[in-house]
Amino acid sequence: MVNKDNSIRRHYFDWAASAPIACADYSSLFGNPSSQHSEGRAAKLALEDARRRCAVVLNVPVDTLYFTSGGTESNSIALFANLVKKGQGRIISSPAEHSSVREAMQTLEKMGKPTGSVSVDSYGRVTAENFAKALEKYGDARFASVMAVNNETGAVTDIASLRDVIRKNPSPVHLHCDLVQAVGKIPVDIQNWGIDSASISAHKISGPRGIGLLYLRRPMEVFYTGGGQEGGIRGGTENTQGALSLADCLEKYCGAETVQAEYARAKERWNKLITSLVKMERCTIIPAHRAKTENEDAFSPYILQVAFKDIPGEVMARALDDLGFAVSTGSACSSSSPERPVLLAMGIDEKLRLEGIRISQGRQTTDEQIDLLLEAIAEVLKFL
Amino acid sequence: MVNKDNSIRRHYFDWAASAPIACADYSSLFGNPSSQHSEGRAAKLALEDARRRCAVVLNVPVDTLYFTSGGTESNSIALFANLVKKGQGRIISSPAEHSSVREAMQTLEKMGKPTGSVSVDSYGRVTAENFAKALEKYGDARFASVMAVNNETGAVTDIASLRDVIRKNPSPVHLHCDLVQAVGKIPVDIQNWGIDSASISAHKISGPRGIGLLYLRRPMEVFYTGGGQEGGIRGGTENTQGALSLADCLEKYCGAETVQAEYARAKERWNKLITSLVKMERCTIIPAHRAKTENEDAFSPYILQVAFKDIPGEVMARALDDLGFAVSTGSACSSSSPERPVLLAMGIDEKLRLEGIRISQGRQTTDEQIDLLLEAIAEVLKFL
Repeated sequence: MVNKDNSIRRHYFDWAASAPIACADYSSLFGNPSSQHSEGRAAKLALEDARRRCAVVLNVPVDTLYFTSGGTESNSIALFANLVKKGQGRIISSPAEHSSVREAMQTLEKMGKPTGSVSVDSYGRVTAENFAKALEKYGDARFASVMAVNNETGAVTDIASLRDVIRKNPSPVHLHCDLVQAVGKIPVDIQNWGIDSASISAHKISGPRGIGLLYLRRPMEVFYTGGGQEGGIRGGTENTQGALSLADCLEKYCGAETVQAEYARAKERWNKLITSLVKMERCTIIPAHRAKTENEDAFSPYILQVAFKDIPGEVMARALDDLGFAVSTGSACSSSSPERPVLLAMGIDEKLRLEGIRISQGRQTTDEQIDLLLEAIAEVLKFL
Repeated sequence: MVNKDNSIRRHYFDWAASAPIACADYSSLFGNPSSQHSEGRAAKLALEDARRRCAVVLNVPVDTLYFTSGGTESNSIALFANLVKKGQGRIISSPAEHSSVREAMQTLEKMGKPTGSVSVDSYGRVTAENFAKALEKYGDARFASVMAVNNETGAVTDIASLRDVIRKNPSPVHLHCDLVQAVGKIPVDIQNWGIDSASISAHKISGPRGIGLLYLRRPMEVFYTGGGQEGGIRGGTENTQGALSLADCLEKYCGAETVQAEYARAKERWNKLITSLVKMERCTIIPAHRAKTENEDAFSPYILQVAFKDIPGEVMARALDDLGFAVSTGSACSSSSPERPVLLAMGIDEKLRLEGIRISQGRQTTDEQIDLLLEAIAEVLKFL
């Protein structure tokens, strides 16, 4: 499988780490949106137009969206707001969260904030039952951070079910939701899901790096306001160009109808991949019962965690890379840590954890590429 | 002064807020630099090449540079590291610092950290004398944040003189330096100036938004590591495209020879502007003795603060904007606050503070534009 110039044809299966970039050039809007002159006002108008367009796609009021530098920063702004909140409410979160949340939880702990853990089930999800148990255990919990789609396994947490648990709780609990792997992938209903704050990243949906969104149902005091931009929620000169590109990508790839249509196609390709993989002798889907689950929508059809007996994930990823296929071991953001904390939280044993690779697809992935990937895996299994 | 299409010809004099963007398209390097596959490795190589090129221009070891989302974030990372530092050292800073530093100081205070203030002189600079006084007053000072070039007045602080004060101090003091308005504008010598950490922003030197640099002489524990990228100093998927554009701009516009040549040209244009302005009856250069200073290099020849009697700065800025000239009132990052804290710190009285406008130029500014700006100001003065 080589190109005309004899280079190996590449097949990108790491969309969960970062998607191919499709951005227009907005460099002519170089004015500082906080400046009052014509260039500044043009940039400000463009920025607010971008915000309005994002709000339309996400179906939220325009004044609930704040541009940030990305998912990690959005998560940290929401979590660190707890440092300036009055009262000593506990912050709870699952061990399967993205590293940006896990690290923020550790920082909060270091700063003397009480924290608590919500268990995940063998899918890697936070179930309503586990969530209710956590709220019962931690009567002082006032803030919960739970991701919608797990970035390593694709496990989908039913956020609306957590909303229902919170509604029955004697005390209010702020629900923060990391939507980075959800937006553009599964149907998302921020308002109906009862989310108080949420994180979105542009580069996962073919936008540029360095731009993301923080959704805040209500404005809140944050840890650090910087220069006071973005309503005092996120300081630093506003990234007009990034905001416009993010709005473009949300409109192009993340509208409800597009997501639904793409979801059906992605599921078809993923079912084909999974059905073929489980037939391979040394292959284990993680978790194993994903292949058998009756709830088809329990996992995002964009992410798959899979292991091959006696082949360390790193070796498998490298072998596939040599054949032209980009897959990853775990999350790119945790690639420096070989511990695979998400899989550990799901109760996956150490050997399997080390054998796991993550395959993720996107809107440009084709049926043919799935076939080729399966062939390549079969090829590797012959030699390793 | 209209263009062929009858639109008003624009003259941009707000380079200190943001510079016109001159970036190449690096979207093909879309891989996540933390991924191990070919796309990820290509992105990582590009990122490290960008870092190496930045290090060459800035004349610092490559492993002292960390990519961030911009100047505000670089300042906050450096300052908030004090929250996890062992010991209760005091953090001192001047009231003329950029709002991102002033706000961070307030956050540190709220978190129970002892802080202290270093006075600025009537230029808006931190002199060695004032700095020594502050270190004497605050024997427990262990961290000082001082900007090299003031963003509202252009006042240049002699950072090397602060280094000498620190060297004589009985206890070590970490010297953090906001270089945002210095890099590409005045000769900068990070290592020789004894700087321990420094902030650089891309969009002030024609780079894109959402990217900047943090210089750390030695690695340090930071408040929040996020996903562990950038050596654990700045979390979040690395902005490869931004880093490459920043490296391009540093090379093109910020090399020592370029800065020196541009400085001479900028000074010539600025001297012409100032000489003509002081002849206007209602004009006051801020500070007034800037026009008379014998130390020509006490102010950056890229920024000028000036007031016109009985004309509020906002009105003057709007009138000039209508004539096609973009100038600002104070810093874009503080535009929401009409208090002008930098001018206040310099001892400028309230009336003059409100009349102040900031004119800032860049490498594309021409002699002709200076003439036109002077004509426009004269025109406005006739009617207001």
